[in-house]
Amino acid sequence: MIAVTLDLEGVLSPEIWICVAEKTKIDELRLTTRDISDYDELMQHRLKILDSHGIRLSDIQDVIESMDLLPGAKEFLDKLRSMSQVIILSDTFAEFAKPIMKKLGYPTLFCHSLEVKDDRIVGYNLRQKDQKRCAVEALKSLNFNVFAAGDSYNDIEMLKAANSACLFCAPDSVKKKFPQFASVETYDDLMAVIVETQCIASLQ
Amino acid sequence: MIAVTLDLEGVLSPEIWICVAEKTKIDELRLTTRDISDYDELMQHRLKILDSHGIRLSDIQDVIESMDLLPGAKEFLDKLRSMSQVIILSDTFAEFAKPIMKKLGYPTLFCHSLEVKDDRIVGYNLRQKDQKRCAVEALKSLNFNVFAAGDSYNDIEMLKAANSACLFCAPDSVKKKFPQFASVETYDDLMAVIVETQCIASLQ
Repeated sequence: MIAVTLDLEGVLSPEIWICVAEKTKIDELRLTTRDISDYDELMQHRLKILDSHGIRLSDIQDVIESMDLLPGAKEFLDKLRSMSQVIILSDTFAEFAKPIMKKLGYPTLFCHSLEVKDDRIVGYNLRQKDQKRCAVEALKSLNFNVFAAGDSYNDIEMLKAANSACLFCAPDSVKKKFPQFASVETYDDLMAVIVETQCIASLQ
Repeated sequence: MIAVTLDLEGVLSPEIWICVAEKTKIDELRLTTRDISDYDELMQHRLKILDSHGIRLSDIQDVIESMDLLPGAKEFLDKLRSMSQVIILSDTFAEFAKPIMKKLGYPTLFCHSLEVKDDRIVGYNLRQKDQKRCAVEALKSLNFNVFAAGDSYNDIEMLKAANSACLFCAPDSVKKKFPQFASVETYDDLMAVIVETQCIASLQ
């Protein structure tokens, strides 16, 4: 049996922090792990910025609520879910992802969570270190044949752990660094790669 | 983070083989593991009966397509999926479950699969022995706090493996044999137990 694991931001939805930075006009929220390589330091920095601007969880959820999915994402995911089991593996937080999951029709999501007090984000809990790879390995231990797709550095261990994998709309730097992975730019091509490598045409 | 694992037949949908027996008027298809305790023997017997009556996969899928979900099942599941991750753990086959999954809005399903040739069911593949327990243990290894609900003997290992669990509309025999599990009869009560034991009210 087949399970497909997909990254969320960059694959089905835009990048959440970029949208929050744009809507709040706080440029510092654009910082990523490319700017502050230590993830905990980056997140503490983000939370401090939010707090200093009085931005609460519900404000961010409003921004995320107003974000559109990537064009064609819902149709692609609907079709995929009718053919195969799909689990979204994302390093975002459940509270941020909630409005996106609603738009996507509540696919299963494995991610992290926030600590929230009276609508103020006071901290965060990483559910598990290297959770994308661990989830793929858990699915393989349950005898699933796993296909993984993602666009970024934090997807690479997931792609490596899967039975087959593909980069989707990845930056050139990622594609160049990991030439072992097929790379596609459209949902039609991603679907074609999944169907071809997993032989799931019969389940359509 | 919380994951809820639910049995399918008897919890969200009627029993598939009972419906197939009723619609096809083939009483022998009512046999269960209570009549033929060896599951493989039972399945081979069922496949032989189907074949002798010229019943193909698409015929059974038509029957399943015509089955209604249990009253309130979709609403319960929709609400639960907006609050928590949900994985259906069923010992049915993906090809049978497909019409039910469509009606439920494609929740994630871990089950088994059939071997089909030209619409004729020629065999079946159990994805994994004791798959319900294994799935709960895999979710726990991913640091999920797992709540499980089911109605039958084949759910007991899943219930035992979960962090918390509950019987749902179970026969008296099951309730009497496993008094360690709370037992509820309605979706409202099941939701209340899940929310209470998992403290997920804040995610609503």
